[in-house]
Amino acid sequence: MTGRVYLVGAGPGDPDLLTVRALRILRQADVVLYDRLVGSRVLELVNPLAQRIYVGKHEGEQQRVQGEIHALLLRFVREGRTVVRLKGGDPFVFGRGGEEWAALVRQGVPVEVVPGLSSALALPALAGIPLTCRGVSGGFAVVTGHREGRLARGSAAGEAHWRRYAAAETLVVLMGVKRRAEIARALIDAGRPPHEPVAFIESGCSPEQRVIEATLEDVAGERVEVVPPAVWIAGEVVAWRHRLSSRHQILAGSPGRHQTKLE
Amino acid sequence: MTGRVYLVGAGPGDPDLLTVRALRILRQADVVLYDRLVGSRVLELVNPLAQRIYVGKHEGEQQRVQGEIHALLLRFVREGRTVVRLKGGDPFVFGRGGEEWAALVRQGVPVEVVPGLSSALALPALAGIPLTCRGVSGGFAVVTGHREGRLARGSAAGEAHWRRYAAAETLVVLMGVKRRAEIARALIDAGRPPHEPVAFIESGCSPEQRVIEATLEDVAGERVEVVPPAVWIAGEVVAWRHRLSSRHQILAGSPGRHQTKLE
Repeated sequence: MTGRVYLVGAGPGDPDLLTVRALRILRQADVVLYDRLVGSRVLELVNPLAQRIYVGKHEGEQQRVQGEIHALLLRFVREGRTVVRLKGGDPFVFGRGGEEWAALVRQGVPVEVVPGLSSALALPALAGIPLTCRGVSGGFAVVTGHREGRLARGSAAGEAHWRRYAAAETLVVLMGVKRRAEIARALIDAGRPPHEPVAFIESGCSPEQRVIEATLEDVAGERVEVVPPAVWIAGEVVAWRHRLSSRHQILAGSPGRHQTKLE
Repeated sequence: MTGRVYLVGAGPGDPDLLTVRALRILRQADVVLYDRLVGSRVLELVNPLAQRIYVGKHEGEQQRVQGEIHALLLRFVREGRTVVRLKGGDPFVFGRGGEEWAALVRQGVPVEVVPGLSSALALPALAGIPLTCRGVSGGFAVVTGHREGRLARGSAAGEAHWRRYAAAETLVVLMGVKRRAEIARALIDAGRPPHEPVAFIESGCSPEQRVIEATLEDVAGERVEVVPPAVWIAGEVVAWRHRLSSRHQILAGSPGRHQTKLE
């Protein structure tokens, strides 16, 4: 007997921001394989009788772990179980959802996809940063800052990556905290204005959420402290935050840089 | 007494793809102001005692209607009612959510934001098109194809708009059906490969959903029929659709162009 795999987005971490369908499927799951960025409060909603398996990856071991994940998904689904593959945010925004789906389809396994709120869009919205705004931003780009060789700065392909997206009115970088200074320098080299406002939303959707505002130049000059995971937004829309939210409070600031915290 | 305005994303149309929080708020609403792209099945979930007001805009009347929406929101919230401003997809992806939020904050009205699944991300996912994919696409851009003078082709600003985003590995165009041929020509002029695969997801998330595949060149040559609303995806990831979904069936095809329908 063959079950089915549900490829489910867990959203940005707040269980209330799961979709109705995701919540229903988590409650019916027999097995849940989940990633590092899935919120603990989301996991509390999983069927209490389900087996939960952590399959988060650390840098360097991605490829090995990915093969093991495919093997586990196949094993459980062939046992006829309701298998949920749960990924933080949306499964197709740097989540390798496509690869896992393709591996299952090659083996004839039925897959149902449940998109989730991507942190790249939901966290800025909740922090008062509209990614698009009439007259300010007619589009946005979402890119990975993760080093995969080809994205390394100094390499031709790495520079091409940042040049490709540097003209976007609003730019959202995921997995770009560790290399933020070199990314900011690459973006300035590619033509983004050094004084442009940027914001990092650190530990989004958690009680520890912190929004750090700065300029691209501050980031390039290694003057901005951020702890991953954080979503990084660059563009004029960042300045809208101060028109929108009456709920944030400036904790500390130097010219062009503020740390603010949601109440 | 002052109530509160909930600025809520309705997602791509399937009520199961509402967030848990959006569903709860819709059930408690006293008044719901909704847009043209909010699905009828989502509206069925609104508190049956709530007043529902359609405030959809047609081309040319946007600015007038926008002022009326702000006035209505203020009037209802000052009556102490629980007011929901419901927008298709996500309120900040070309939804003017930022403008409405700012207008309310200026009047001292408390606003709570509930992000929704953007059609730009959710519809490709459900159709088997991963916007990012390791080794294929390290980022994506979402842009409006709506004509606002400054985006007109032939105008310097219009050309700049398409050049700005033309290098994105995956490009998602919203509100770009009517002007698809001129947009496709602008993208080719800006360097996108004419043979690149594109897909339009027409009437996404409805029983009438139809996915139309073509090449950028086909679109530029006015050889592709599409009825709005549709989400338009351009990039190599479109070809992944055939690896992913075993659920679609080719209805009609000419070289480089297929019409497929989900079962």
